Amino acid sequence: MTEIHQPDPAAVVDLLGVLAYGELSAFDRMAHDARMAPSTALRAALAEKAALEMGHYRKLVDRIAEFGVDPQQAMAPFVMAVETFHARTEPKTWGEALVKAYVGDGLAADFYREVATYVDEATRALVEEALADSGNAEFAIREVGVLLLQDQTAASRLSLWGRRLVGEAISQAQHVAAERDALVRLIVGGAGDLTAISVLIDRITGKHVARMRALGLSN
Amino acid sequence: MTEIHQPDPAAVVDLLGVLAYGELSAFDRMAHDARMAPSTALRAALAEKAALEMGHYRKLVDRIAEFGVDPQQAMAPFVMAVETFHARTEPKTWGEALVKAYVGDGLAADFYREVATYVDEATRALVEEALADSGNAEFAIREVGVLLLQDQTAASRLSLWGRRLVGEAISQAQHVAAERDALVRLIVGGAGDLTAISVLIDRITGKHVARMRALGLSN
Repeated sequence: MTEIHQPDPAAVVDLLGVLAYGELSAFDRMAHDARMAPSTALRAALAEKAALEMGHYRKLVDRIAEFGVDPQQAMAPFVMAVETFHARTEPKTWGEALVKAYVGDGLAADFYREVATYVDEATRALVEEALADSGNAEFAIREVGVLLLQDQTAASRLSLWGRRLVGEAISQAQHVAAERDALVRLIVGGAGDLTAISVLIDRITGKHVARMRALGLSN
Repeated sequence: MTEIHQPDPAAVVDLLGVLAYGELSAFDRMAHDARMAPSTALRAALAEKAALEMGHYRKLVDRIAEFGVDPQQAMAPFVMAVETFHARTEPKTWGEALVKAYVGDGLAADFYREVATYVDEATRALVEEALADSGNAEFAIREVGVLLLQDQTAASRLSLWGRRLVGEAISQAQHVAAERDALVRLIVGGAGDLTAISVLIDRITGKHVARMRALGLSN
């Protein structure tokens, strides 16, 4: 019963591991996607966002090491799911890259927030620091707005793209959840109730819909 | 005659422009090369180096803007030379990626140092800050050392690679020099003497040879 209020260290390491690999791969993908930018200034703007992820990554792996765990070991169980997500959502246009950066950041922020209440103090501080770095939203909203003005047909394509992003993210999250019991218990607040997961997914999907509207896209 | 002691602002903007585009493209290429790393830890180490370049980039473009110049305009004349350099020196192995990151950083640092004496105070401060971020040398020296222990034949291939890197860098620098008179005058200390350029190239080549030796490679 104490597990409910005392987070399982193995689960916290799992959480830090998936977040760390998520940041590293977000860096990698955004750095790559930046090449699609229509100008050097926009390319640099996405590159700067990518660079920020490495700051988060560093803090996450340092925290993993404080648990006495090798960060590579902590990340290893999540590499496949994260890479599969990215392989299935490779942007083909600058608009897709912008929406992915924005949606990906938003989903990550939601996830950070959801779990922040269930982890130890030091891990929570780290999570809050990662969240404070946002403000990428304005960049994406402005630049997607520019694209929609130039090309009215982009809205329906990018709306579809947004749905695909969240669908693939949920699909990969479910694969991870099926294999990481302790992590699932941590994420649903130690309730051990699997219906809590669908409630969580509904809540995060709701926020995703709000974010797509902010971009001027439908869901 | 005053040009000798008062740097030409157009030349300083040229200098900041080539450095800024160099940092942006170094970010892009190192982020890409990091995928060749044999482990997540080494991949992250190169990704973190790449992320640092964006900090330098930001300071350089902010300084360009202080001169009242659009950073994109300032970088534009150098895009072709920098991209040609990278296209001709695309690493095929992790060892090549390491040597390129190390040699590229070293050449950039030499160049920053050479010109730092001839520019205004604010630009000099920025140059010194960019130089302070090094310490990548130890990383490359250690990891190239690991590779050479694993594979004795790597030394001759990587030595050849080092020569190719510096050769391509000098070749592209000469293309730039042929077209940017004011920049050349700034770099050679306002001497206006073109033999000063070959003296500069000799000095930088000498430092390159020392760096290759530090890696355990010949030149």
